[in-house]
Amino acid sequence: MTNTNEFTRLLTLVRSQKPLVHHITNYVTVNDCANITLAIGASPVMADAIEEAGDIAAIASALVLNMGTLNSRTVESMLIAGKSANQNGIPVVFDPVGAGASSMRNEAAARILNENKVAVVRGNLSEIRFIAGLSANTKGVDASEQDGGDTGKIARKLAQKLGCVAAITGAVDTVSDGERTIYIHNGHPALSGVTGTGCMCSSLIGSFCAAAPNQAFEGTVAALLCMGIAGEMAYEKAGHIGNGSFRIGILDAVSKLDTNILNERMKYSEV
Amino acid sequence: MTNTNEFTRLLTLVRSQKPLVHHITNYVTVNDCANITLAIGASPVMADAIEEAGDIAAIASALVLNMGTLNSRTVESMLIAGKSANQNGIPVVFDPVGAGASSMRNEAAARILNENKVAVVRGNLSEIRFIAGLSANTKGVDASEQDGGDTGKIARKLAQKLGCVAAITGAVDTVSDGERTIYIHNGHPALSGVTGTGCMCSSLIGSFCAAAPNQAFEGTVAALLCMGIAGEMAYEKAGHIGNGSFRIGILDAVSKLDTNILNERMKYSEV
Amino acid sequence: MTNTNEFTRLLTLVRSQKPLVHHITNYVTVNDCANITLAIGASPVMADAIEEAGDIAAIASALVLNMGTLNSRTVESMLIAGKSANQNGIPVVFDPVGAGASSMRNEAAARILNENKVAVVRGNLSEIRFIAGLSANTKGVDASEQDGGDTGKIARKLAQKLGCVAAITGAVDTVSDGERTIYIHNGHPALSGVTGTGCMCSSLIGSFCAAAPNQAFEGTVAALLCMGIAGEMAYEKAGHIGNGSFRIGILDAVSKLDTNILNERMKYSEV
Repeated sequence: MTNTNEFTRLLTLVRSQKPLVHHITNYVTVNDCANITLAIGASPVMADAIEEAGDIAAIASALVLNMGTLNSRTVESMLIAGKSANQNGIPVVFDPVGAGASSMRNEAAARILNENKVAVVRGNLSEIRFIAGLSANTKGVDASEQDGGDTGKIARKLAQKLGCVAAITGAVDTVSDGERTIYIHNGHPALSGVTGTGCMCSSLIGSFCAAAPNQAFEGTVAALLCMGIAGEMAYEKAGHIGNGSFRIGILDAVSKLDTNILNERMKYSEV
Repeated sequence: MTNTNEFTRLLTLVRSQKPLVHHITNYVTVNDCANITLAIGASPVMADAIEEAGDIAAIASALVLNMGTLNSRTVESMLIAGKSANQNGIPVVFDPVGAGASSMRNEAAARILNENKVAVVRGNLSEIRFIAGLSANTKGVDASEQDGGDTGKIARKLAQKLGCVAAITGAVDTVSDGERTIYIHNGHPALSGVTGTGCMCSSLIGSFCAAAPNQAFEGTVAALLCMGIAGEMAYEKAGHIGNGSFRIGILDAVSKLDTNILNERMKYSEV
Repeated sequence: MTNTNEFTRLLTLVRSQKPLVHHITNYVTVNDCANITLAIGASPVMADAIEEAGDIAAIASALVLNMGTLNSRTVESMLIAGKSANQNGIPVVFDPVGAGASSMRNEAAARILNENKVAVVRGNLSEIRFIAGLSANTKGVDASEQDGGDTGKIARKLAQKLGCVAAITGAVDTVSDGERTIYIHNGHPALSGVTGTGCMCSSLIGSFCAAAPNQAFEGTVAALLCMGIAGEMAYEKAGHIGNGSFRIGILDAVSKLDTNILNERMKYSEV
């Protein structure tokens, strides 16, 4: 079984190292991604020009590729940055936003997975089912409610296929490295009422992987525990006020998270 | 006269349907647009690649075209998405941000109106006067104070010319379908101190048109009632604190709007 | 010595003129830049298409060039806008985000400084050292802690070299026009925990330069006093809550700043 202390240790590590996390991400939630990266204790850099994507990835400690508002230029940048990260031993976190929703997205996802080695892939169930080659029913970029299925089985299978960590976020989050599988029970339904909570999960995963590149599984779990707990804390404080305050509360909570809060509130099960 | 109950019914409809609203919009306020779309109960998707603009529009229930930070690539995407929406019977909401401020904007607006059939056009008085072919005095993207004129007449004329709903937002909002004209008296001057309130109006209009594509007039009025009331509620709660809190209060209020609040606070007159 | 009343006078001037400030800036913090420009009393316009960059700059009262998420297209737009601003006597504020971090950024910065005449250049110590031709140690887009040095000397030297105002922001801000040098002691360490505070400084500088183009030195100092004081006020009010609320507090404070607050709280020294 994974040692609980490992998750709190990783949080302390992120806070002490302040690692640089390079993002090539969408322009919808990029500000939230930058701010949550700072709130957890890491340092964000966003740079998507083809001419510098490789240079910036090379000086970072992790690379987050998010295809939310991809275009033909940024897909090339993602591939170049991914190659540079691979060459430099820097972990790549891939967020296949909207995979299944258009041919362009499907092809971009396939190219990234074929041409780059990713350390972690994180998506909602629709996206991960598509990536896993299963039938998916993607409705825009939010998870389709029709998608059911055994998330543990899907994540485990995808992790084995890609040789990486696979994470499915939803009411319960599922993380597998192909052998171990952890279900995270923290979180709040209100998180689906705010844009970018998925993207922010990927930024947190990037932050943890940057601090401990050899512990992508534990880092991914720690990141999702942090997001889930932050969602609970934000809802307790601001859920009755409305979506705007709840969203600000997420950043507040992440910035105030410490090992005590994490220890007290984390809820997960391992199979 | 338009039945007041129609507006509350449409709000309930948006909340129950959670329709997908495709945006090709500017990167300044895109996060606010996504969050207000979620707050009213719809589901946003932002996608502007030429290769997928048509595919994404085809799976959405409404399309919002906002030319705030247009470039030569995204203008093409808007036209492709608009064509796809037209072919699929999906209503198009057009927000001609900054029309009149540059030749590029003027030509883009003309192409969109010539090549696409729009269901609703919404802008400030400067922009709508320009679109209507009247003399305009556009100062950047905010309404020029010098622009006066009878908004009802301008909106009615433009609605007839384009065969769509025309909405002019300002201290008083004006909505016309060429026959009926409604003036909305909700709102607060502080809304002009926050960026993106116009863009957010267009996202709300898109959300209502997505839920009831055959009621673009009523949907546009309902959307502007919601924004105006949210502005009042946000100011009551946070206006004394400052612009940042007021802005968050708008999202809070939209997410908490219900048929009772709408019924109690809506103020409009019909001519 | 610079007259203290000059700073409060300039704030009043911005508020009364509501000058238009054209930004070609990054998509990470662009919303914050627009909102802080409104909060200080100016009017933002963001437009980066090559086809209109010159037109929009020509109708603005200041131009802010920020290369945070530059790409080959927007670099051209910056150069065109800069040329238009120069021809029309409109002050250009240059924010060389991440200078030193990639060849592309270094070349873009060199082109902008060679082909455009800038009124103010503002960056953190890493960026300004790079621009000044000194050795820099740029870690992404945040200031590298290893960079020490006498900021007054560096700013003065750069100001003389470029014939402009040079500003280095950090724990203490330094502003020089090559003759006068002012150190600003307002501010709070929490500002480094939020993305975009540097970019927002540049937007405020643009707003002040727009209102008083012949007083770029005094305007830059006034802008940084405003940001520093807003950071202090935001921390007093919301620092204990977390990063999200602190960030909203910055906009609140800027919108509520007046000449009394500025007079009471400003802390600077002139050499």
